[in-house]
Amino acid sequence: MMVNLSEAADFLLNNDSFLLLCHISPDGDTVGSATALARGLISKGKKAGILCGDRITSEYAFMFEGLEMSNDEPAHIVAVDVADPKLLGKEYSKKYGGRVELCIDHHASNTLYADRVFLEPDSASAAAMVYLLLEKMGVDITPVIAGCLYTGVSTDTGCFRFSNTTVRTFEIAAKLAEYGADYYNINQAFFETKTKTYAALERLALEGMKFYFDGRCAVITVTRDMYDQTGSNEAETTKLANLPRQVEGVKVGVLMRELEDGSFKCSLRTHGEIDASVIAAKLGGGGHAGAAACTVAEDKDTVTRMLLDAIEPEI
Amino acid sequence: MMVNLSEAADFLLNNDSFLLLCHISPDGDTVGSATALARGLISKGKKAGILCGDRITSEYAFMFEGLEMSNDEPAHIVAVDVADPKLLGKEYSKKYGGRVELCIDHHASNTLYADRVFLEPDSASAAAMVYLLLEKMGVDITPVIAGCLYTGVSTDTGCFRFSNTTVRTFEIAAKLAEYGADYYNINQAFFETKTKTYAALERLALEGMKFYFDGRCAVITVTRDMYDQTGSNEAETTKLANLPRQVEGVKVGVLMRELEDGSFKCSLRTHGEIDASVIAAKLGGGGHAGAAACTVAEDKDTVTRMLLDAIEPEI
Repeated sequence: MMVNLSEAADFLLNNDSFLLLCHISPDGDTVGSATALARGLISKGKKAGILCGDRITSEYAFMFEGLEMSNDEPAHIVAVDVADPKLLGKEYSKKYGGRVELCIDHHASNTLYADRVFLEPDSASAAAMVYLLLEKMGVDITPVIAGCLYTGVSTDTGCFRFSNTTVRTFEIAAKLAEYGADYYNINQAFFETKTKTYAALERLALEGMKFYFDGRCAVITVTRDMYDQTGSNEAETTKLANLPRQVEGVKVGVLMRELEDGSFKCSLRTHGEIDASVIAAKLGGGGHAGAAACTVAEDKDTVTRMLLDAIEPEI
Repeated sequence: MMVNLSEAADFLLNNDSFLLLCHISPDGDTVGSATALARGLISKGKKAGILCGDRITSEYAFMFEGLEMSNDEPAHIVAVDVADPKLLGKEYSKKYGGRVELCIDHHASNTLYADRVFLEPDSASAAAMVYLLLEKMGVDITPVIAGCLYTGVSTDTGCFRFSNTTVRTFEIAAKLAEYGADYYNINQAFFETKTKTYAALERLALEGMKFYFDGRCAVITVTRDMYDQTGSNEAETTKLANLPRQVEGVKVGVLMRELEDGSFKCSLRTHGEIDASVIAAKLGGGGHAGAAACTVAEDKDTVTRMLLDAIEPEI
């Protein structure tokens, strides 16, 4: 059933032990939401652990400082920013997919798999929803909690630049800054820092950028051998996804990156009028209007053709 | 004399005809502040024109829609975001430099040349100060005014990423968004759009990036022939200034761009602990702690050496 803010807060206040689940390919929003919520619950005398089906990369490590990752006690299962149980990953999807008691999410594509679904498709981030929950629960927002939430809010809006950014996004950012979020260093880390290996990969990827449909679509492709050439790696490619759309006239920007098994993960970024999630859905993926993704197990040329076929009617 | 918010508002309310002056090399803050203030004054039944010693580039044109640029009546002179009368440009400096009745500025380096100086060095932008002034004056903040102000607030903070960003910056952004500022399209235009010629120039400039002092300083240089090679031009180079500092480990990032007369304008970007304005001042320039600039009339190699000599003791 769908629940509102108060009902979600009551569920959290009325129980004592929680296991919080993040989605695979963890990002700042799922991790920021989970770590902030865990800290809030613990401050209220409760137990809370966090699980993610993928390794959490070092850039998010600061949010876990002093936090237990797992909770061995019998716990109520809460999923944060997880639109579909399959996004829990193979193992956790099987183990917890049918047992999620509360899902806190902002994806319109949420499959409503949880007992209680607190869903706000207009919210730019799950972290903004967790902020409202913590306030409702009377949690003291420490600078550390504010930093975790700010990370979710800023990374899911591309530092306030994506079309999902609302008045509330700025208001919550102001509140979190006031609560002591270290927004400067968080912004520097996520938006203004490139490793030397990433900088080299970016240069290489941009050199190979291809334009289609009279320059309205731009595609960059990252293959495994480009990692060898630059010393970069898959975890560093996420930021590349926004670059094709930045070129003037481009309505649909695509990053195709080759995964270890030879399939291609395609990240789509579109401008307002074109719905990226519609394109991604044609290839078995999903996401938001401005940003979506899909994975296709075909060779590079085939994936490119399939993508362009999916894009053509929308552009 | 120094004046506070109320005194500055009173001066504006108690007079009827104004000429607003912007600084040369106009940016989003000086233009956004002037256009918002002019619109606010006009809405109060006053006359207001705007002058700038340099041509205002097309990216700022939207802020002038429906506005008179000049005011032929005898007018009270107000400078916005102008730290020094010489930043009015040769002609206007001579004509108006000694007659500025009110200066609204946020540069700590302000030379206090005006009769009344409303100065807030802790303010991230002059536009944030103009916002407070307009509120104080009881001006109805229209979506257009909010957009002009948002442009100043966002461009002077690098879309909330520079170290000058404060809680108030976020609060004012939230208010301006609520007043109807078209923040999405403004952010897209200023931060997420690259012309094809700029994209080519950026690639070329990054290829030539040089590192000094064990990677703590990075310098990119744009020469006149790079414009010929890429079809880009001087107006497009501003965004390049932030790129060297983005590389991991870089504390001082420098963009050196060759001007038409063969001299080099050097834009410095530093991380928190290093004061860019101290380095720029050694070469006759100035600015803020995180961002400063100077112009040196020497050849490329000499300018590079002079810059590195100025940077070495600070890094």
